[in-house]
Amino acid sequence: MALIEPRTLKGFRDYLPETMMPRERLMETARKVYRSYGFAPIDTPALEYEEILTGKGGEESDKQLYRFEDHGGRKVALRFDLTVPLARFVAQYHNDLGLPFKRYHIGPVWRGENTQRGRYREFIQCDFDTIGVETITADIEAVLVVHDLFRALGFEKFQIRVNNRKVLNGLLASLGLSEHSAGILRVLDKLPKAGEAKVREELTTALALDGTRADEVIRIASISGSNAAILAELKPLARGETGEKGLAELAELLRCVEAAGVPAERVQLDPSIARGLDYYTGTILETFLGDLPAIGSVCSGGRYDNLAQLYTKERMPGIGASLGLDRLLAAMEELGMLEKRRTPVSLMLAFFDPQHLSDYLRLASRLRAAGIGVEFYPEPKKLGAQLKYADRRGFKRALILGSDEWKNGRCQLKDLASGTSRDLALEDGRGALSPELLAALTD
Amino acid sequence: MALIEPRTLKGFRDYLPETMMPRERLMETARKVYRSYGFAPIDTPALEYEEILTGKGGEESDKQLYRFEDHGGRKVALRFDLTVPLARFVAQYHNDLGLPFKRYHIGPVWRGENTQRGRYREFIQCDFDTIGVETITADIEAVLVVHDLFRALGFEKFQIRVNNRKVLNGLLASLGLSEHSAGILRVLDKLPKAGEAKVREELTTALALDGTRADEVIRIASISGSNAAILAELKPLARGETGEKGLAELAELLRCVEAAGVPAERVQLDPSIARGLDYYTGTILETFLGDLPAIGSVCSGGRYDNLAQLYTKERMPGIGASLGLDRLLAAMEELGMLEKRRTPVSLMLAFFDPQHLSDYLRLASRLRAAGIGVEFYPEPKKLGAQLKYADRRGFKRALILGSDEWKNGRCQLKDLASGTSRDLALEDGRGALSPELLAALTD
Repeated sequence: MALIEPRTLKGFRDYLPETMMPRERLMETARKVYRSYGFAPIDTPALEYEEILTGKGGEESDKQLYRFEDHGGRKVALRFDLTVPLARFVAQYHNDLGLPFKRYHIGPVWRGENTQRGRYREFIQCDFDTIGVETITADIEAVLVVHDLFRALGFEKFQIRVNNRKVLNGLLASLGLSEHSAGILRVLDKLPKAGEAKVREELTTALALDGTRADEVIRIASISGSNAAILAELKPLARGETGEKGLAELAELLRCVEAAGVPAERVQLDPSIARGLDYYTGTILETFLGDLPAIGSVCSGGRYDNLAQLYTKERMPGIGASLGLDRLLAAMEELGMLEKRRTPVSLMLAFFDPQHLSDYLRLASRLRAAGIGVEFYPEPKKLGAQLKYADRRGFKRALILGSDEWKNGRCQLKDLASGTSRDLALEDGRGALSPELLAALTD
Repeated sequence: MALIEPRTLKGFRDYLPETMMPRERLMETARKVYRSYGFAPIDTPALEYEEILTGKGGEESDKQLYRFEDHGGRKVALRFDLTVPLARFVAQYHNDLGLPFKRYHIGPVWRGENTQRGRYREFIQCDFDTIGVETITADIEAVLVVHDLFRALGFEKFQIRVNNRKVLNGLLASLGLSEHSAGILRVLDKLPKAGEAKVREELTTALALDGTRADEVIRIASISGSNAAILAELKPLARGETGEKGLAELAELLRCVEAAGVPAERVQLDPSIARGLDYYTGTILETFLGDLPAIGSVCSGGRYDNLAQLYTKERMPGIGASLGLDRLLAAMEELGMLEKRRTPVSLMLAFFDPQHLSDYLRLASRLRAAGIGVEFYPEPKKLGAQLKYADRRGFKRALILGSDEWKNGRCQLKDLASGTSRDLALEDGRGALSPELLAALTD
């Protein structure tokens, strides 16, 4: 019989233990931080009716949608983000959920995009959103969540860049460009990557702005300095009710975030942050790594006025952000932040004497009951082969007992990095594992 | 604009916080137990080339497969289990992985089956497998893992029923039924659900066994009693090398599992356990809940001789089991084992005085830094409305501070079940949160 070539579908990837372990750690950290603010988890199906998903993320998303007919001839598609399913979800259950509703959702999404630069067609998003809250409190909290998240993930150098759509709209109104605002914000969003020249060209050609106003848009987006200095510089520019409201929101957000304990250098007002998506209406935020800014924003989000308007007449304002988990994982790999281990435990118990199989198993069970994870090598192979395996997997220690040790109630604990061994008592004389052994096994 | 009806795809379901929180807890518990034995996580894509998945789980699986063409015209399908992707995975990476290879994999699978009795077309599997090990050690450990898992999940009354395909094959050989063994085992697998009469009918009609031998097959499968008594009764029946080897394996497994500390009543030899799938070759196991046996096995698995034979010439023996997480969740719901809460934290901080917004936010941050999760109510609504929200969500406590409390450095901690409040100091006099407050907030 001919063999089937074992291969991963083009555009997709497998996660081997050395990558999957940190990936799980990232998800656990995100869950822990989200929960600590009272966000509760939900889950929705990977598949939705096609009509739920199409036309929600723009033409590009529609093109990238994996769609097909299911066994009952229903037109279905794989979700391309977690926001559209959230909109469907809150529209469907809002009576039962009650508002405010704070949820997080961690799960894979699928986009049939061209694969390049380490991007894949399946990736995990970690979203959190507060629905049903108009006040700036939720915006402030969103920034605090992102801050706590990156601290908990082990980052010291990172920056959350914030802006406000009302400010941007106010600025554009002052320039008499209100009717072009959606298009301009989409173009402006490309500023960091594409550069000024390219953005100026798009503004003057595709959007037909005159050169003076295109320059002014770019100049405003490029204002930099301390948060206070930028606020002061924007003040005379963002006139009108909308612009002023946006500036007041930004000022309050920056004040409270700092009061809550976030170092000033971690939250930066940045007038160039625009977020391409149409539905943002207030605070917008992006997150950049200090040591790898080029990878782009690893956590982005913002405020919206009406999340679920396609599915319900109920108005659902809110704010949320999405952690690009797999992109962050790639960044951490590049920054050498990931440990190269293939085992979730530090201790391997060698299998030396087949006569004592049940003793080994019982010892392993007792260690686990004491909170010490241990892998028992499954075959009484030569010790050298077992230690080689332990080394290759990245175990820190090997516990070795032969018939002498079993007789004398001793064990050999080998440190695999240094190669040194210690002879330790197995029990404390009253039938419990010895304190010296337990202490030596604590990471 | 006409609204789109917000609805979940037929055959699928959403998980609201009150169900998703215990579901996450189950997954966390499974991860913790699997890791404690040295199983490392992997992940594979939801989508695979169709040729990887078809023909692997039998006709029924092929029919239930969600398949379609991707954007590049490739024939693809959604995985229907985690075992076939594992086979593809180890065939693809075995040189890099090294053997033995112990992995766990937790993820959704999709089957377009008829929806009935609370079964859905998407559900989560939690698998663990040891690859590359011939010795019974891995079989013993598999039983220990399942035992630890159900203990960690909070079950006292459950039973892991074990059997061995070699014993079954030996028994069938004694009856001269070797050539029908695959078919007989598939029919026998239905015994607990379908009953004797139905199984006898299938054996005599579909498989054309004579009545005497059909009765004998059913009689053997129905042998009950203590493990020792069943082993003794099977001994003269399972003759020949295969049967004897199987009985020796079973005896060793039962001995070691007990020696490792598993109470005898939790592991039961059961000659009727057959597992329908063709690829099992040794130990097989199923797990039943003492308080809800009718729901069927919630964790099943077994030993196979050659996992990846369709993809590689490398022989890959192993053993593993799969926890039916969503079925177990349904069982726990039925047994009243799930707490009816919609919040992951116990404490809500009320928003009373808008002048102190940044103080509230800072207090919440300090509580979180002390390991106490807290949800801050986002609007300074009437206290009654805030407490009603807290009650509905299932918070245990509300922390209340008005302008007097902020001035005097005090806070009111309200127990939401009893309705009683305590007046507590906010700080300890040296700028840290007071010990009495922290103690009162510990669950």
